Amino acid sequence: MTTLSPQPLTAGAFAPFGEVLEAAGAFRLINEGLCRRHHDLAALDFGPDGRAGISVFEAVPRALPYDFTLVERHPEGSQAFLPLTQHPFLVIVAPDEAGAPGRPLAFITSGAQGINLRRGVWHGVLAPLHSPGLFAVVDRIGTTPNLEEYRYAEPFRVVA
Amino acid sequence: MTTLSPQPLTAGAFAPFGEVLEAAGAFRLINEGLCRRHHDLAALDFGPDGRAGISVFEAVPRALPYDFTLVERHPEGSQAFLPLTQHPFLVIVAPDEAGAPGRPLAFITSGAQGINLRRGVWHGVLAPLHSPGLFAVVDRIGTTPNLEEYRYAEPFRVVA
Repeated sequence: MTTLSPQPLTAGAFAPFGEVLEAAGAFRLINEGLCRRHHDLAALDFGPDGRAGISVFEAVPRALPYDFTLVERHPEGSQAFLPLTQHPFLVIVAPDEAGAPGRPLAFITSGAQGINLRRGVWHGVLAPLHSPGLFAVVDRIGTTPNLEEYRYAEPFRVVA
Repeated sequence: MTTLSPQPLTAGAFAPFGEVLEAAGAFRLINEGLCRRHHDLAALDFGPDGRAGISVFEAVPRALPYDFTLVERHPEGSQAFLPLTQHPFLVIVAPDEAGAPGRPLAFITSGAQGINLRRGVWHGVLAPLHSPGLFAVVDRIGTTPNLEEYRYAEPFRVVA
């Protein structure tokens, strides 16, 4: 079984897949100087027929080592995961290779990071590492199908 | 000085102002049964010329008693606050009375709740009660003015 060691999530390493959403870099001071606004961090894209929605996900916490075969992608829209806790979570993404996912990469968040997955990016299912596995999700609301799943022939194992 | 006692935030009490975003009520099971999706909880509204954006806010924590005179509203769009921590935060809103805010109400979140403020709802500035005061904010990105501020003649005090 192929093992993957999660890398710390950074904007640079994640750039091929989407954006890291965190209080880093430039900001505007608002509210009489008492709040920093890190402005408009995600390349949201809900396609011609979709609209933005906010949902709340509650996922069963996983543990390392974590084995998976399933990845998925959303052809019709971007998808942002915003943790409602300070717990790190696992981010699995894969490059597209002629319509199928290539070798996956694993990242682990700092505990103060969300992510936005670009439209169509292959990714693992939501994998919190602690309870409660609560996230706000900003993704495409629409009536047409927006889920493609892919199962690797062999599992990958994410190790600590 | 008028004092306000914060009520626990509930969907019913908050309904005149917007939505409570939390893992409550109906859900769809996704990800092979390992995740509950509480679907499309917020009435997002970014006006004819705006679009959705995700920003990250980091606000200085406040303490109770908390005195304020300033409230604001965004005429061009809804605004959702999603805490990136499990800390309760203070929510101050006020009904509109002929273009000016009436007597404010104070709510306190459970630690597992975000809010979406309807377009044009008068509200206090972001008031976390613990460090870090980190929130993801889903609001209107656009080029036209979208902030109206109002100062009450006398301060209100939110007590514990």
